[in-house]
Amino acid sequence: MANGDNPLSSYSLEKQFETFRTELEESGTLRERIRSVVSEIESTTRVMYATLLLVHQSRSVNELLEKAKSQIDVLKEKYKQLAQILGGCSGQYYRYHGDWKSETQSVVSLLTFMHWLETGNLLEHKEAEDKLGLNNSEFGLDVEDYLIGVCFMSNELPRYVVNQVTAGDYDCPRKVLKFLTDLHAAFRLLNLRNDFLRKKFDGMKYDLRKVEEVHYDVKIRGLTPNGESVGDKGVEG
Amino acid sequence: MANGDNPLSSYSLEKQFETFRTELEESGTLRERIRSVVSEIESTTRVMYATLLLVHQSRSVNELLEKAKSQIDVLKEKYKQLAQILGGCSGQYYRYHGDWKSETQSVVSLLTFMHWLETGNLLEHKEAEDKLGLNNSEFGLDVEDYLIGVCFMSNELPRYVVNQVTAGDYDCPRKVLKFLTDLHAAFRLLNLRNDFLRKKFDGMKYDLRKVEEVHYDVKIRGLTPNGESVGDKGVEG
Amino acid sequence: MANGDNPLSSYSLEKQFETFRTELEESGTLRERIRSVVSEIESTTRVMYATLLLVHQSRSVNELLEKAKSQIDVLKEKYKQLAQILGGCSGQYYRYHGDWKSETQSVVSLLTFMHWLETGNLLEHKEAEDKLGLNNSEFGLDVEDYLIGVCFMSNELPRYVVNQVTAGDYDCPRKVLKFLTDLHAAFRLLNLRNDFLRKKFDGMKYDLRKVEEVHYDVKIRGLTPNGESVGDKGVEG
Amino acid sequence: MANGDNPLSSYSLEKQFETFRTELEESGTLRERIRSVVSEIESTTRVMYATLLLVHQSRSVNELLEKAKSQIDVLKEKYKQLAQILGGCSGQYYRYHGDWKSETQSVVSLLTFMHWLETGNLLEHKEAEDKLGLNNSEFGLDVEDYLIGVCFMSNELPRYVVNQVTAGDYDCPRKVLKFLTDLHAAFRLLNLRNDFLRKKFDGMKYDLRKVEEVHYDVKIRGLTPNGESVGDKGVEG
Repeated sequence: MANGDNPLSSYSLEKQFETFRTELEESGTLRERIRSVVSEIESTTRVMYATLLLVHQSRSVNELLEKAKSQIDVLKEKYKQLAQILGGCSGQYYRYHGDWKSETQSVVSLLTFMHWLETGNLLEHKEAEDKLGLNNSEFGLDVEDYLIGVCFMSNELPRYVVNQVTAGDYDCPRKVLKFLTDLHAAFRLLNLRNDFLRKKFDGMKYDLRKVEEVHYDVKIRGLTPNGESVGDKGVEG
Repeated sequence: MANGDNPLSSYSLEKQFETFRTELEESGTLRERIRSVVSEIESTTRVMYATLLLVHQSRSVNELLEKAKSQIDVLKEKYKQLAQILGGCSGQYYRYHGDWKSETQSVVSLLTFMHWLETGNLLEHKEAEDKLGLNNSEFGLDVEDYLIGVCFMSNELPRYVVNQVTAGDYDCPRKVLKFLTDLHAAFRLLNLRNDFLRKKFDGMKYDLRKVEEVHYDVKIRGLTPNGESVGDKGVEG
Repeated sequence: MANGDNPLSSYSLEKQFETFRTELEESGTLRERIRSVVSEIESTTRVMYATLLLVHQSRSVNELLEKAKSQIDVLKEKYKQLAQILGGCSGQYYRYHGDWKSETQSVVSLLTFMHWLETGNLLEHKEAEDKLGLNNSEFGLDVEDYLIGVCFMSNELPRYVVNQVTAGDYDCPRKVLKFLTDLHAAFRLLNLRNDFLRKKFDGMKYDLRKVEEVHYDVKIRGLTPNGESVGDKGVEG
Repeated sequence: MANGDNPLSSYSLEKQFETFRTELEESGTLRERIRSVVSEIESTTRVMYATLLLVHQSRSVNELLEKAKSQIDVLKEKYKQLAQILGGCSGQYYRYHGDWKSETQSVVSLLTFMHWLETGNLLEHKEAEDKLGLNNSEFGLDVEDYLIGVCFMSNELPRYVVNQVTAGDYDCPRKVLKFLTDLHAAFRLLNLRNDFLRKKFDGMKYDLRKVEEVHYDVKIRGLTPNGESVGDKGVEG
């Protein structure tokens, strides 16, 4: 150790830490702004979900979709704000990614469920980005967030099938089963590591199994798509 | 839900997931390459520390510093490789930051300890970046990593003081106390959130207290800087 | 530091701590008295629940309700005692709230379940306060405790539905589903923070899903409210 | 279960939950306002402590005390704001107590340390309330918070003694030992339950032991209050 009694050293130390203080505070302020926008994304998503989940009570799908769709622009606006907050500092997307990823997964889950109700198909990653205005090379939709959102959507399907059959739509299980089987097979193409996405994908297996059971219930009772029972051979058979 | 029996849909699904598979695999491969370089940074740091810690056994500081310094270029080369791995994809620094931050904090701790042994002053953030070739706007040294590394370095000082006094350097506690007091005061300027850095800084208080106690032991025994005891026969008796 | 050798100081210190001792002991004694009453509330609630849960074994609801109702006055008396214990010290409700809140949530769960069995409706907050004599501005029923108790009650409903269907009441799932759907929708109006109440409410979703599944089972087998099966021989075969 | 199909019931349910929503939101807003004031209390305390801890570096006590004292009115003002926030709703002190108690314990620790440096005596509970404007029957200083703050203050004393002796004040250990012995004895009068206060009090034993050791070091070396060593008999004998 050299002398260390240099009278300049503690001054220079203080000056340097003054810079650190500024930087840490800027980062803290940025994070607060991000959180504020994210909390609005969260509450908009919550409202849209509340509307959409009425689908389980056999409400008119078209009406519910119209109502939910009208909020997508609000979400788009919020993501625009997020992008602006991070805009000044390039390459900060992943620095603060942890602050919005879970909410974005919910948004994806919601949009893919809406799209599936409307078209029977999976909303593609690119389409989800377009809907949210995330089609920017610097501020897009992380692929893992998209895939996790799709897994969350899949969790909604067994309940949907159960309620549709209750309401007399006996063809629903077949269609959902086809969709979910294809989706599950597509996920199997991915070489998933042992992480959160893998865990969520593992849960999709239970959704598939449940839908298969409902499909079986309908088939074994000979319930035809047009709602007529052709006679039940019964599980007790 | 629309028909969903579109024969194209499962093909398009598969194609899209093929893209995801590629992307996830690229990201997985990147991560493996990062980890491989980081593991070399880790082992180089370990070897340098092993050398440097001989300072506690009163080996010649200059010799140890020479030996440790010769490895800095190895570290610099590794960080260059890290930067290259991430080079193609701008803005990925923070995406993979979690994979090297803890090792980088150890590197900072090592470099600041070496610099302090040599000059008695704190290695500045900018100087640390220079030594590691991290003086690039895209791939620099995160301020929090630097600060945490400095806290780790502070943990080394009480042990150093104890061993120096044992070896007869009675002025060492005074100098270290001055350095550590200034450093502690500088950290107090930061408005730390309740996070990891805060916890590490809180630990610095114990280092300070321990050095104060050694300083007290030396003073109360009247041990003068030049190694003569005026009132006490000293710890060596 | 001033002299500190003032002969009065340690006397004054002791005197002050004598006061603290008294206060802490009073607070300790109060807490013991509260706990003693709360433990009686807890055991009364346990006995009432034991009676009421026979409803799952298809005992006469009216008889069980009569028996359970006869204990409500015991609870009311205990809450009166609680209020009296805290009566001298205004504003102490929340100081000791932690000592009775969990037991009070169980009481609410019990009362709302009884009321629902009797009327098919939700016991309102005001009505619950009346039953327990908690209609005092100083000592009422905390809204969060009420809401958590309602969530606990909801957990009882899937089991109730399953057992009622087994006993041949095929209209029960429809009624319970309507009640639970309305209740769930009402809770969604609340902007819940990420706390205990939120967690309990999240659990209500599973109750709803389970009741939907029972409703589905009944529907798919064409079991009509009057107990006649049109297309299936029913679970009893 | 009665019919439950009453068309009024879900309307009444919704209306009641509207009230709950308002209440939960009011409580949430209140809590946010409290936290904002508490965060200012915390930062004022931090600044005052930063000043006061320079006492360990043998700075002029009077000067440091003057500087720290000038901030007491800021704290007083903040507690006044806290009281006003809760003012409308009597008896809410303990409902939100958890949101400020830990910061208030730090404030007490600071004030008692300042008072001790100035007078050598313990700042009484009543005096602490006066300084903070907490001398209101509805919004006072909780006794446990006061006592925990005193325990925190005691943790500062060993370090103070060590540094004072280093700076040549050999009478300091005797005075601090007398104060701490009296304080420890006073705490023993309390019949502490097995809680946080008890744990903090148990820590005071270590402070006492450490001060005893310093007192012993000074005595055994015959260091007299006026700073002259009368000859060291030495631990080595």
